[in-house]
Amino acid sequence: MTISFEILDEDINGRCGRLKVGDNVLKTPALLPVVNPHLPVIPPPELKAMGAGAIITNAYIFYRSSEFREQALSRGLHDVLGFDGIIMTDSGSFQLSVYGDVEVTNRETLLFQKAIGSDILVPLDIPTHPDSDRDTVVKELEITMDRIREAREVLGPEAHLAGPLQGGLFSDLREETGRALGDMGFTFTPVGAVVPLMESYRYRELVEVVLAAKRGIPSSSCVHLFGAGHPAMFALAVAMGCDLFDSAAYALYAKEGRYLTTHGSMKLDELSDLPCSCEICRHTTPDEIRKSPDRIRLLARHNLIVTLSEIARIHQAITDGTLWELVDERCRGHPELLRGYRALLGHGEQISARDRISKRRFFYRGSESCLRSEVTRYHDLISRFFTGRRALVSFERTSGSFGEPYDSVFWFRPPFGPYPPELHETFPIGQSELPDWDDDMVRAGCKGIRALITSNPECDLTVRCGPEWVPVVRQEIQGVTIDGY
Amino acid sequence: MTISFEILDEDINGRCGRLKVGDNVLKTPALLPVVNPHLPVIPPPELKAMGAGAIITNAYIFYRSSEFREQALSRGLHDVLGFDGIIMTDSGSFQLSVYGDVEVTNRETLLFQKAIGSDILVPLDIPTHPDSDRDTVVKELEITMDRIREAREVLGPEAHLAGPLQGGLFSDLREETGRALGDMGFTFTPVGAVVPLMESYRYRELVEVVLAAKRGIPSSSCVHLFGAGHPAMFALAVAMGCDLFDSAAYALYAKEGRYLTTHGSMKLDELSDLPCSCEICRHTTPDEIRKSPDRIRLLARHNLIVTLSEIARIHQAITDGTLWELVDERCRGHPELLRGYRALLGHGEQISARDRISKRRFFYRGSESCLRSEVTRYHDLISRFFTGRRALVSFERTSGSFGEPYDSVFWFRPPFGPYPPELHETFPIGQSELPDWDDDMVRAGCKGIRALITSNPECDLTVRCGPEWVPVVRQEIQGVTIDGY
Repeated sequence: MTISFEILDEDINGRCGRLKVGDNVLKTPALLPVVNPHLPVIPPPELKAMGAGAIITNAYIFYRSSEFREQALSRGLHDVLGFDGIIMTDSGSFQLSVYGDVEVTNRETLLFQKAIGSDILVPLDIPTHPDSDRDTVVKELEITMDRIREAREVLGPEAHLAGPLQGGLFSDLREETGRALGDMGFTFTPVGAVVPLMESYRYRELVEVVLAAKRGIPSSSCVHLFGAGHPAMFALAVAMGCDLFDSAAYALYAKEGRYLTTHGSMKLDELSDLPCSCEICRHTTPDEIRKSPDRIRLLARHNLIVTLSEIARIHQAITDGTLWELVDERCRGHPELLRGYRALLGHGEQISARDRISKRRFFYRGSESCLRSEVTRYHDLISRFFTGRRALVSFERTSGSFGEPYDSVFWFRPPFGPYPPELHETFPIGQSELPDWDDDMVRAGCKGIRALITSNPECDLTVRCGPEWVPVVRQEIQGVTIDGY
Repeated sequence: MTISFEILDEDINGRCGRLKVGDNVLKTPALLPVVNPHLPVIPPPELKAMGAGAIITNAYIFYRSSEFREQALSRGLHDVLGFDGIIMTDSGSFQLSVYGDVEVTNRETLLFQKAIGSDILVPLDIPTHPDSDRDTVVKELEITMDRIREAREVLGPEAHLAGPLQGGLFSDLREETGRALGDMGFTFTPVGAVVPLMESYRYRELVEVVLAAKRGIPSSSCVHLFGAGHPAMFALAVAMGCDLFDSAAYALYAKEGRYLTTHGSMKLDELSDLPCSCEICRHTTPDEIRKSPDRIRLLARHNLIVTLSEIARIHQAITDGTLWELVDERCRGHPELLRGYRALLGHGEQISARDRISKRRFFYRGSESCLRSEVTRYHDLISRFFTGRRALVSFERTSGSFGEPYDSVFWFRPPFGPYPPELHETFPIGQSELPDWDDDMVRAGCKGIRALITSNPECDLTVRCGPEWVPVVRQEIQGVTIDGY
């Protein structure tokens, strides 16, 4: 019996799912708080009470610790940590990325993870730094794949084994590796070695890497974005199809006096107020936390609550079909996240291919909304409209006569474009709410008109619009009659 | 001794301040939860414990209630409600807006408010519906102003009297009235009769009304946006210079099973998760709340916590000089809020005149950022730059020779525009973080180049830019040499 993953609900390329590992079931997207047995800022039973159904810990720390090794081997990991949810173990790969070397072999760490009763085991993959050249990436990727194959042999096909996906910044390698892991039957795929990208806000590249991996990974596989723990980027990652995160950030940031929010991190020392609704922030002042002997624990708790509640917000957004709104909200929090968001929007075809067909609403949130999958998908739909020989696209919604014998009349709704009047209540036309039309919106709508022209090359098309839109329409659409009323 | 208001910190047109009413001091911006003595969903002592330093209650309810009237007269309002913070009383004006009539005169309500020990008294102003015609507005405004003058006579100049500001949708009347109230010495000004606008999401008109009022009201006066209780619009209102809100929403919404968030309201019945970090949402499931006999109280507590923590976030944003980021985040939550936000950005001159000169950062969040006060203000600053006879604006930041004898060389940073190289570390140039340049950003920067041309009409200006920007520069700037490298 291997790890199983069931998808219950989808929005953009994100999903709400159910990860089954043995008898344990985890609702995804989920955050796995990282537990360091040497420094348990928040003890695992308390993590469970806070809502964490799964945690991750480092098998290598147990392996190397005289204190914990024997305990874990004799009592098992769950008993030592006091946690009856899912425990995933890292192999030592993290130490490899930090120190360049570990004193354990792939086989040793796997057998040790098995012996201590880990629920999800990870081979000793090579976390190739994203800035490595192609030769290095290829060479290290081969070692990783060898180790994954070795892991299969050592543990057998039924083991709860994760298949970590490496490949540096090379999209083709990430995609191929995703496909290879799928072919090997992996249903749990951590995308690895992206921490350096996140640490230096290289979200544009992160998006390219993850989307490439996702093109290869079967959509039925649970995807873990290894090392992602800042809530500001969860929505973006989920929109790409990531299902799991793990956070050491809640504790590490706390030790550095840093206060997590969904719009970035702040320094506790610089806070005049606690801009959060969690129980700590509502019952304490910044000064009280600063002066408390319990400072790190209080900050860590706040950090984790914020992180877990962002996961809840993502669940709700997927259920509601409003994940784009959340992605848009979060990604404007930092210009580099905005770059990542724009990169995601640039992959319209990949994204809209899996997005759900109907949603409760389309709220326009600024020019980036013109590139959302609902718009891309609608532009694709337009090619199915038949115009006849003479057609009109009218910016004004009117059922009156136009004084001309048109074979078909379309109304116009930016950023989508032309639509047959009978579709005016269907998604997305009928559920779209817009501020006053703006240039970017109308330009996107003109793209829809161009799609209509392309699929009806014989048509003599007239666009009827108010004088304020004539220049934009003229710029965007060639060879069309413009009737500025 | 009257109501005093001190401004401690400013950002955009918002302020952190200190409102002094008798011995009580209230940190502003602040939210005054509305307390209905008949239906105290959350008892006032609990409101205090949750962080509310002031509340508002309706004197007319006390006046008309056989149960509460005598109690309030004999024991005083603070004792009856069990609240030792600031208590503001509404006069019956709310009932006037709902029922069209009240059974109390202006003099009677004022003397009653005084007798029960209200901290902030409100005359019986006429809440003219925003859709009223000018004649009605003028006529009712005259009655309101008469009643304010009567209030002054009845209570004397030292009373803690609010001067409510009416004027419908007529900007000139709102502005004049603001000035008149300032001339009368009011330091506490509720902007009234805007609830119908907020109820129907007419934020664009709300912005026009409030900005008009603010042009008249002295900046030293504390401004209360009467009836504003939804946290999604606090940031926008504070950015315009509102200091106080009052919320019945936390309780009313709870009764209707509605769940407040800073990005809109949701129906409890439709929630699969509780997307919030408050103590109720982290320790309960939607189903548990739905089935709880304590459902309304739990929802009301959540609603109020969210509302109060939004106030904390606003404080922090003003302290940090990042209020534009918060306004941008909130106002994209609904297309009508986005309209309001864009309307605010359209008042660049009024806004930038009072905005602070230097901030910690300028994060670009999308094309709306091109209209922020930092950009407007920078464009004004450009007129002070002297170019000499031949000048160059270079999109590339290079200190090399340009092969031409220029009298001055400027670098270019969108959305600001040209800047002398020696200013490259000063605000906003040096503190601005941008994603990849986009069209809107570069167009805004070209506006800066135009300002440079306008203030140096004798100059022969060359713009040096990459080929991708030549079409935009050509469109935006006439009569300039373009050197596309």
